[in-house]
Amino acid sequence: MKTCVIGVDFGTLSARAVVCDTENGRVLGEAERAYAHGVMDTALPDGTRLPPDWALQHPADYLSALESAVRGALEKSGAAQDAVVGIGVDFTASTVLPVRRDGTPLCMLERYAHEPHAYVKLWKHHGAQAEAERMNEVALARGEAWLADFGGRISCEMALPKLYQVLREAPDIYAAMDDWMEAGDWVIWQLTGERQRSRCAAGYKSFYRKGEGYPPKAYFAALDARLEHAAEEKLSAPVIPAVSRAGALTQEMAVRLGLCPGIAVAAAMVDAHAGVIGAGLSRSGQMLGIIGTSACYMTLGDTKRHVPGIFGVVEDGILPGCFGYEAGQSCVGDLFGWLAEGFAPERYKAEAEKKGISVHQLMTELAQRQRPGEHGLLALDWWNGCRSPLMDGGLSGLLLGMTLRTKPEEIYRALIESTAYGARMIVEGYRAGGVPMDAFYVTGGIAKKNAMAMQIYADVLGMDVQVIKSSQCGALGAAILASAAAGREIREAIAAMASPVERVYHPQADAHAVYDQLYAEYEKLLALFGRGGNDVMKRLRAISARA
Amino acid sequence: MKTCVIGVDFGTLSARAVVCDTENGRVLGEAERAYAHGVMDTALPDGTRLPPDWALQHPADYLSALESAVRGALEKSGAAQDAVVGIGVDFTASTVLPVRRDGTPLCMLERYAHEPHAYVKLWKHHGAQAEAERMNEVALARGEAWLADFGGRISCEMALPKLYQVLREAPDIYAAMDDWMEAGDWVIWQLTGERQRSRCAAGYKSFYRKGEGYPPKAYFAALDARLEHAAEEKLSAPVIPAVSRAGALTQEMAVRLGLCPGIAVAAAMVDAHAGVIGAGLSRSGQMLGIIGTSACYMTLGDTKRHVPGIFGVVEDGILPGCFGYEAGQSCVGDLFGWLAEGFAPERYKAEAEKKGISVHQLMTELAQRQRPGEHGLLALDWWNGCRSPLMDGGLSGLLLGMTLRTKPEEIYRALIESTAYGARMIVEGYRAGGVPMDAFYVTGGIAKKNAMAMQIYADVLGMDVQVIKSSQCGALGAAILASAAAGREIREAIAAMASPVERVYHPQADAHAVYDQLYAEYEKLLALFGRGGNDVMKRLRAISARA
Repeated sequence: MKTCVIGVDFGTLSARAVVCDTENGRVLGEAERAYAHGVMDTALPDGTRLPPDWALQHPADYLSALESAVRGALEKSGAAQDAVVGIGVDFTASTVLPVRRDGTPLCMLERYAHEPHAYVKLWKHHGAQAEAERMNEVALARGEAWLADFGGRISCEMALPKLYQVLREAPDIYAAMDDWMEAGDWVIWQLTGERQRSRCAAGYKSFYRKGEGYPPKAYFAALDARLEHAAEEKLSAPVIPAVSRAGALTQEMAVRLGLCPGIAVAAAMVDAHAGVIGAGLSRSGQMLGIIGTSACYMTLGDTKRHVPGIFGVVEDGILPGCFGYEAGQSCVGDLFGWLAEGFAPERYKAEAEKKGISVHQLMTELAQRQRPGEHGLLALDWWNGCRSPLMDGGLSGLLLGMTLRTKPEEIYRALIESTAYGARMIVEGYRAGGVPMDAFYVTGGIAKKNAMAMQIYADVLGMDVQVIKSSQCGALGAAILASAAAGREIREAIAAMASPVERVYHPQADAHAVYDQLYAEYEKLLALFGRGGNDVMKRLRAISARA
Repeated sequence: MKTCVIGVDFGTLSARAVVCDTENGRVLGEAERAYAHGVMDTALPDGTRLPPDWALQHPADYLSALESAVRGALEKSGAAQDAVVGIGVDFTASTVLPVRRDGTPLCMLERYAHEPHAYVKLWKHHGAQAEAERMNEVALARGEAWLADFGGRISCEMALPKLYQVLREAPDIYAAMDDWMEAGDWVIWQLTGERQRSRCAAGYKSFYRKGEGYPPKAYFAALDARLEHAAEEKLSAPVIPAVSRAGALTQEMAVRLGLCPGIAVAAAMVDAHAGVIGAGLSRSGQMLGIIGTSACYMTLGDTKRHVPGIFGVVEDGILPGCFGYEAGQSCVGDLFGWLAEGFAPERYKAEAEKKGISVHQLMTELAQRQRPGEHGLLALDWWNGCRSPLMDGGLSGLLLGMTLRTKPEEIYRALIESTAYGARMIVEGYRAGGVPMDAFYVTGGIAKKNAMAMQIYADVLGMDVQVIKSSQCGALGAAILASAAAGREIREAIAAMASPVERVYHPQADAHAVYDQLYAEYEKLLALFGRGGNDVMKRLRAISARA
């Protein structure tokens, strides 16, 4: 009998399930379900206002989306219930929540339902910037050796600054939580009944290192005496390998999902990292860019190198026997959307409707007519802060070169280019750090849908940009992990099931020459506004916070 | 019998005539007529494409708008034809055209109709940037003393760089012209039959100095051997005082305009300078800001001071016995319009229509709810280059501080603030240069229509902003000049006819304190991008020009 596995990808706005053939990875059925509460960035469901820079979610949304997506995918696949031998999950990270010992999220207890800190802090919650800064200062002052594994700088998007923010701003919530769980691990807990943490998120997002564990007690104590025992008290769930069987599907969840109880459940993996597996990366020198609302740049290495400004390098963090590297950009598609949705004048909307295309497509058509550099614009792509290489959520966007003739599609193109310069900063950072980089693969919404953007990336990078065929690398990776959890060797599962390349963009020499000049300008502005030359962005944020 | 005078204000897009009572300045009738060809910035009427940065006009439009506006205003005034004792004209500058000895513009000869350089170069034509730069280099290298009177730097908006551009790019047009006339002087020539130049535009725009004349022959020769005799060959019309009678209205023009032949015609004055007269300024320490699509800042002084970055100081340039100072901003209302017209999404347009207001008004309503500094944004207002204090048309706009939550009305407010910081740079520049500054008057479209903008100006400047009641200070000033040309002492005419103040905006201490901080950031960015710290704006323009 043909056997199947299910992979479920938990994104920023929805969960998507795929049912895959274990023999060849073919997707037999898939379904996507949006989270009922979406991203809560202005108010809680009860109307409680949220500060700026916050982004919360509701954990109940994860389970209802999971149920609905799995049932929908299974139905579409036509696969028999008992053909499914395993299920795997990948999740955005660090998306974290406070829970009770029995797994109940604090926000689902009535007494905490009105308390913002009781909810899930989404990866892009930037409220813990002050805490991240203090963590950096203390780590540097103490010469903490583990910091070098995480790019030398802690981002406010990580799990520990977010935990520290809870302690500072809501000590009662901090006291009431028994565990500070990654949402992916929490979902696996619900599926298996086993309270565990995957080494993947524990490594990249909570700085857990193989053979070393979490940062030392003395470091936590130096931050705040109340944090001294944080690792034992709030991160106490056992850590299991990134590629492993977390447990068996419980009777209750089997009924809820329409699957057989007892099938293998894989350890949760961070979404970008699962994407590496779905895209079939297996050797040093390959990079995968997952380019959607934001972007992750993942690569594999044979040795550990310290690269400034990456999120982290974790031994066995993606594949056993490899060092997995992660870097990222805080906004990409979100930035294009900011312009296309927030600043497209009526006539563009009317024109797009007339042509039966989206405003994005219209902007792309118009932007495509421009030659590189023609618009005279340059942007720093920091509308959502800068992850790599600066790890600084306190930075903001910059655009210069405007004249009274500057049109929306010119800014649209400049924003696309700015994210390509950001990607090149990351590639060059890896190379400068001694991590080889010879093949550039991409996936994600922007990579699949915006051919102009990908040609610009090829032209800016001066490298082939190879688009992975599957548009669900994360879910496919989760399915491959499920197949491994069901008993197969992981590299064998990847070889059989991972997605091929569907399209290659080659760099154009003329365009690359122009972009070399513009990239040099981008580097200068990055140094100026991002490395202390002029901290105006920080001062503007402080003035805004006071107003 | 009641006597009247007519003032005609030639703006960027239209001419406006007012018929005024000579006793009290009351406007008895007015009419405005748009120029048929408007501003030609992409193509000539025959479709000939224009380079970027160009802005041309058609001189025939001036005479037809003049005729129609004068006839319309006279009809509305109910005044008898023979009650009109004089006519005066004010004009944008340097708006210049090549003409034949008989006054025929070259573009109106069939053989030159397809030649862009044969048309009027509007004040905001920025095609002569390279020539302005060379003129600066040569003037500095030669230690030209006259340069200090013009802010130490020649703008590409002046008459001489534009002439130099014609020589370089179209030497046949240069050879064919007998005179390089300010459009205002050309209109007076058409009215009187007298080929003359007013000292006002000759001083501010062609560097003509009392007792000294135009820049020396050796300077012109150092620029280009073919320019050596430019002053005698192309600027040979006699120079007459700024406040004077240029001649008598010819029979032909009297018929065309519906006026009596022989009435007094005043010398043309630059529009901003005529506004000073219409607004009733008469003493040192008073400044008039004329804030419309762009802005001029005019002030009077008892002594000559050298202020860097102003357009110029000209003895008797506005009023006899005074030093008239001129500074300016290249775009103000144009900048707000760039955003409101080019980047307001459909829902704003729909909301404005529902409320029965303009998109500008809606943006203003929304922007008004923000506290100073709350949006976290800062802009450099150089979308059309920077006039004062940098005199550099090669600069471009900058906006920083954007997040994914930044809304159009926040950018709208930041753009308004950036022009207020620019105004403060000018005020502080005068003070630092030893020109006293204790009263700030404003007029122009933005000053009259946008109360939020004027409150921001008061808060940024920390000074009362006094709005002149007349919305036609230029035309009223031209009418006052007509009354003087008809025989009245100029200060007596001003005292009788100039406009009063209608509203005063007082600075708010809290807002002023926040704006002091933001202004300090503006100053730093201005120094960085405008004074050689990082010439990225110039390099982007060069890359764009090559693309």
